[in-house]
Amino acid sequence: MAMAEKHNHIDNKEIQPLLVFGPPLIFPTFEARNFHKYRFLKAFSSQLPLHQFLTEQNVDPSSIQAILCSPSQQVSTDVIQLLPSLCVIVTSSAGTDHIDLVECSHHGIQVVSVPGDQAKDVADMAVGLLIDVLWKISAADRHVRKWGPSMHRNLSFGSKLKGKRVGIVGLGKIGKEVAKRLEPFGCRIMYHSRNQKPFISYPFYSKVVELAGNSDVLVLCCPLNEQSRHLINREVMLALGKDGAIVNVGRGALIDEKELVRCLMEDEIRGAGLDVFENEPNVPNELFPLDNVVLSPHAASLTSDGFTEVCELAAEALELFFSSKLPSIRLLDG
Amino acid sequence: MAMAEKHNHIDNKEIQPLLVFGPPLIFPTFEARNFHKYRFLKAFSSQLPLHQFLTEQNVDPSSIQAILCSPSQQVSTDVIQLLPSLCVIVTSSAGTDHIDLVECSHHGIQVVSVPGDQAKDVADMAVGLLIDVLWKISAADRHVRKWGPSMHRNLSFGSKLKGKRVGIVGLGKIGKEVAKRLEPFGCRIMYHSRNQKPFISYPFYSKVVELAGNSDVLVLCCPLNEQSRHLINREVMLALGKDGAIVNVGRGALIDEKELVRCLMEDEIRGAGLDVFENEPNVPNELFPLDNVVLSPHAASLTSDGFTEVCELAAEALELFFSSKLPSIRLLDG
Repeated sequence: MAMAEKHNHIDNKEIQPLLVFGPPLIFPTFEARNFHKYRFLKAFSSQLPLHQFLTEQNVDPSSIQAILCSPSQQVSTDVIQLLPSLCVIVTSSAGTDHIDLVECSHHGIQVVSVPGDQAKDVADMAVGLLIDVLWKISAADRHVRKWGPSMHRNLSFGSKLKGKRVGIVGLGKIGKEVAKRLEPFGCRIMYHSRNQKPFISYPFYSKVVELAGNSDVLVLCCPLNEQSRHLINREVMLALGKDGAIVNVGRGALIDEKELVRCLMEDEIRGAGLDVFENEPNVPNELFPLDNVVLSPHAASLTSDGFTEVCELAAEALELFFSSKLPSIRLLDG
Repeated sequence: MAMAEKHNHIDNKEIQPLLVFGPPLIFPTFEARNFHKYRFLKAFSSQLPLHQFLTEQNVDPSSIQAILCSPSQQVSTDVIQLLPSLCVIVTSSAGTDHIDLVECSHHGIQVVSVPGDQAKDVADMAVGLLIDVLWKISAADRHVRKWGPSMHRNLSFGSKLKGKRVGIVGLGKIGKEVAKRLEPFGCRIMYHSRNQKPFISYPFYSKVVELAGNSDVLVLCCPLNEQSRHLINREVMLALGKDGAIVNVGRGALIDEKELVRCLMEDEIRGAGLDVFENEPNVPNELFPLDNVVLSPHAASLTSDGFTEVCELAAEALELFFSSKLPSIRLLDG
């Protein structure tokens, strides 16, 4: 169905149905602010398959033009094929790997990402996790709380940032923000990406295993796709070595998680700071007793001050769509 | 006793007694490397008063010319007055508030500080604690381990660094390194110190309470002395306010710790990242259940790579003294 045809279905005077997947963490705020504009169809709160859920809600699938979603629920081929009038998917995340982009492309569906200032927030978190892993801040905090004041003889010492070789995997927006933050610490930055970047003087490695062999820390900031899935495999971790650490603020499946758990348990690498996991929201239980890992619940884009911003951007994106001005906002696909 | 007279006592061919207080954390390594040069008198391992300990060890107090120490044990007036030949005190720390500097000055005793590259390490830790407090990294890590994957609905969200007004208390070596690291995060730096610094463009506040009133985070990097003791009192904390956080990498007694505990328990301030405490090694028990505080066991200068460096500097300082070339190394007092 062509875009022009689809838009003929719109009646701006009516309260629009908005299908909500995920839900995005901004949703409670979004709902409170926009309850008069949309009929919220909370697919996330139902165990039923989507078509049954819509039947139960007495909603015609062809009345749905927009989805608001987050990475915690897939927008799959089945979902897209069920909704003939779907025109726009707004996601609160920077990543879009939870959305079937190929299927969206076939149907002329626009995917709009409203991550706000997320690149900077994610970079903050990456540096926080890196300092934490090297200095063992979280581990020491747990020990003080458990063992009291005399703990500091029981935990091995941290390691300084100065002179550390930091290999950034994916030198996009986030990767560049990470590099900028780490330079004043005296870290030496190098990177891997699909192609060497023009006007960037950091050493480039076309093979991630070679980057790992020359790095003290790997920071993963690249998107997840079929090429990058399990990019960090056992071979890469062994190349990084016993003194090497990994920080992952990209997506869990960038790393072969089973192998990562094994390497951490057997001290094949120094440690890891993980904001993302392969099967979220599950975190491998084997990691819980380990002191060489920092576990963060996919929180790198979750700040109270960032929420307001994302909430406003999502509202703006949907409003632009329903008033037919969508092409003026940033499109990832379509 | 004049320095020249004292030096007459030295016999370089003899193994010198070295009184060890603290001990510095480098001590095991130091001892292993220098066992052939010194007779180590481990005052730290005895419960006896110093004069009894020396009698028990069959050591004449007047044979002792040098002390190796750390901030975990006081070098008091009594100690100094007991040792008529004492010429040099080598401390592994940047701070010297554990040493009676006035008494040292009266007796011409040189105090040598060998902190290595500590300013940079302490600045790393300050930034690590700041990110941790704002982003709640340690708290989230504990929650994931305790409650498993679904925790991220139970903990309130963090706050971004961008735009935060960071008030640095004490813009010396450490404070400047902290400022340099925080600039790329988009923080706005301001400071308080005894005097306004020339060639520094950051806003200066002559009163710490005014700095607090204009800051989102206070980072304490100044030395402890009679003027700075309890500089951060209840009035300053209330000026900082409910959205304000404190990071302390200076000394515990810079803050009125009782009031700090009260402010943290009653959410009068947002949180605190503490590497130092008023009565180390004691950490106030009331802090253990709180999620708005990060507890670090005075670890900001403790890196495995920094240890080797400090160990070598301490050995060099003592060697220079015993070969009578001490004045060529950095003196803090004397």
